[in-house]
Amino acid sequence: MTPSDTALRSLAIAQRSLADPSVRHPLWPPLTAGCPATSTDEVAYPLDIDYAYDEVPDDLFTRPAAHGLDRWAPLLPPLAAPGLGEGNTPMVALPDGVWVKDESRNPTWSHKDRLNRVAVSAALASGARGIVVSSSGNHGAAAAAYAARAGLPCAVFTSPYAPPAVASHLRAYGATVLTVPYESVRPLMRRIVDELGFQAVSSVTDTAHTGHPFGPEGYKTLAYEVALDLGRAPAAVHLPTGYGELLFGVAKGFQELARLGVTDSVPRMYATEPAAAGALTEALRTGRPTARVPVGPTLAYAIDCEINSYRGVVAVRATGGAARTVTDEQMTAARAELASQGLWCETSAAAGLAGLRAHGPQETDGPVVCVVTSSGYKDVATAGETYEPTAPDWPSIRSALTAARAD
Amino acid sequence: MTPSDTALRSLAIAQRSLADPSVRHPLWPPLTAGCPATSTDEVAYPLDIDYAYDEVPDDLFTRPAAHGLDRWAPLLPPLAAPGLGEGNTPMVALPDGVWVKDESRNPTWSHKDRLNRVAVSAALASGARGIVVSSSGNHGAAAAAYAARAGLPCAVFTSPYAPPAVASHLRAYGATVLTVPYESVRPLMRRIVDELGFQAVSSVTDTAHTGHPFGPEGYKTLAYEVALDLGRAPAAVHLPTGYGELLFGVAKGFQELARLGVTDSVPRMYATEPAAAGALTEALRTGRPTARVPVGPTLAYAIDCEINSYRGVVAVRATGGAARTVTDEQMTAARAELASQGLWCETSAAAGLAGLRAHGPQETDGPVVCVVTSSGYKDVATAGETYEPTAPDWPSIRSALTAARAD
Repeated sequence: MTPSDTALRSLAIAQRSLADPSVRHPLWPPLTAGCPATSTDEVAYPLDIDYAYDEVPDDLFTRPAAHGLDRWAPLLPPLAAPGLGEGNTPMVALPDGVWVKDESRNPTWSHKDRLNRVAVSAALASGARGIVVSSSGNHGAAAAAYAARAGLPCAVFTSPYAPPAVASHLRAYGATVLTVPYESVRPLMRRIVDELGFQAVSSVTDTAHTGHPFGPEGYKTLAYEVALDLGRAPAAVHLPTGYGELLFGVAKGFQELARLGVTDSVPRMYATEPAAAGALTEALRTGRPTARVPVGPTLAYAIDCEINSYRGVVAVRATGGAARTVTDEQMTAARAELASQGLWCETSAAAGLAGLRAHGPQETDGPVVCVVTSSGYKDVATAGETYEPTAPDWPSIRSALTAARAD
Repeated sequence: MTPSDTALRSLAIAQRSLADPSVRHPLWPPLTAGCPATSTDEVAYPLDIDYAYDEVPDDLFTRPAAHGLDRWAPLLPPLAAPGLGEGNTPMVALPDGVWVKDESRNPTWSHKDRLNRVAVSAALASGARGIVVSSSGNHGAAAAAYAARAGLPCAVFTSPYAPPAVASHLRAYGATVLTVPYESVRPLMRRIVDELGFQAVSSVTDTAHTGHPFGPEGYKTLAYEVALDLGRAPAAVHLPTGYGELLFGVAKGFQELARLGVTDSVPRMYATEPAAAGALTEALRTGRPTARVPVGPTLAYAIDCEINSYRGVVAVRATGGAARTVTDEQMTAARAELASQGLWCETSAAAGLAGLRAHGPQETDGPVVCVVTSSGYKDVATAGETYEPTAPDWPSIRSALTAARAD
């Protein structure tokens, strides 16, 4: 490592295939449709970013915490797009000592801001004319916010079944919101990329999920923050998992910390998928890079994915973790446990804690962290109920409150 | 100042009347119905807290930023209730250099978490059997979250007209939510206090607003954070103002920083009220401690108060600031300006920026900060609209996106 630069600059040097890290590509342009060299007709392989690790400033991990991914610029692709004070989210302890990393404290109230700061930066730096994204909610809102901040137009493909509060959010930042039939989404995205010069910050591939190669790098910062807060690597991290970009990015962050000598170990990464759609669980069970599964009904609409990304396979295997599924009942119980501690999240955001409670391991040799990805305002049930006024009737009020007190 | 304690302890020593600071009361119990010595039949005067300022640790303002008000424990009443990583919110710059202090990054996504950590702590430390609060949204949700975290039952009186997403939020933490006619709220609150031993964390007085004497102390931490971030006091702070607890607390925080020699000056505090309900503006105009005004319709439901607290008068006068009103159109324009920069807030939360844009001052001798109090998810319009699916029609999609690009 080298002495600190006053202005932190990116040390990113190349893209490399997750199928074979020796297959390298220049850093620019971002290969948003997967690795052209290693992908097959059956599986599109994603890429990640390599860095000049021997040039990381010596004091990078001893500087004070701060908002904005700029804090971690050497280990990220260039942050060309302006930030919104993303990251630097708090850890909150549950009564049994499990740590909750509360990602609802981000600019658009989900973890997706970390990805979008990096992916929109990549689009801006590579001369894209706009941003295009497909999302049920969190990803689209974050992309729209960062695109607005950067002065880029943004097209968001979303579901007509987005919860009403999320639909308001998706439209808040001035993006063009498109609700077309599911089978039209990726063809239209590719056309917007090809004919209008926009850059996609969610996956445009039909064969597996590849996503934007720069995006998951933003999630590494979550690992850096956890290690700074704990003063060590945790023993295990449990995360809600859809396409596995968060899972991959957090795992890579911890791997980098160990490689740089900041921590002594890498936590086991536990991916939790909804039982209604466990593609990564199925891929790992069958030893394949990707699996396609039928998607059943679930409250965890943010992570009900019919196909996994190879990213998740890499992260779970490299860390000795596992992928498991949880039912809606298990996620709802974990959500209630969090609310009882003052943390209100969407159902999918409680999946990590649900996985810990359902599958363990209960005993570990160090701290356990559950990532809570998003606010309860994003939940499918939010804003969906109406309530009758209460009668101003003292005996029934007294009885409700004394019953609560006795609980 | 004295050498740093390893464990930060509260230096709070007394309650004092805002009408006459020489009128002092013991720190306990919290006088939640205003000052019994100085209040008159016409005006209930609130209290604030005095500290042993000469015992503040020398390094208090040079320690790194951190989540949780515990960071500032010496200058707060005892933090008996567990925290949720409140505070430590980021500042985001607008293109013209105005700073936005984004309070939507708090545990329940508004500034009210700072107040409720302190007020629920006071209730817990003084042996209250539960928490009672009246709120249109943010305050009630925050009180319910901190009460749940502390294991106390909570009664929330709210309006039957709360926006649907806010209604979901209010009920999320297991509080008893009561929607009774407006005129029944304070009598029932007083009865819950008197007969069930709960403590009120919002005002129970009919003659002016007094509030919980410890609560606004939590808002001082916002001033401390701003000064740490800027390395100085700003020249002006613009805030949405309802009852003026935020206004008072932020002003007091800056006054303390100057008193302790951390900063050289105190910013002018600019209170912005909705034109539909400008009680503080009217009180200052007429030179009275409080004024009662008719409340008209407004989108800024979080700050449409029929009567002000004397707190606001004190804060504006002491800092050489002003109170002004803005129309719904001006708040809506400020809200759109923030969204165009990736910051989505509720209408009332944009009032501070609206006041700056409408009334200035445009030129100052230092940084200008607008406090944005809460997330767009709390807005009255959120979740209220439905949207038709879009046709997957390339010419119209292309034309929408190229028009956006040309803007």
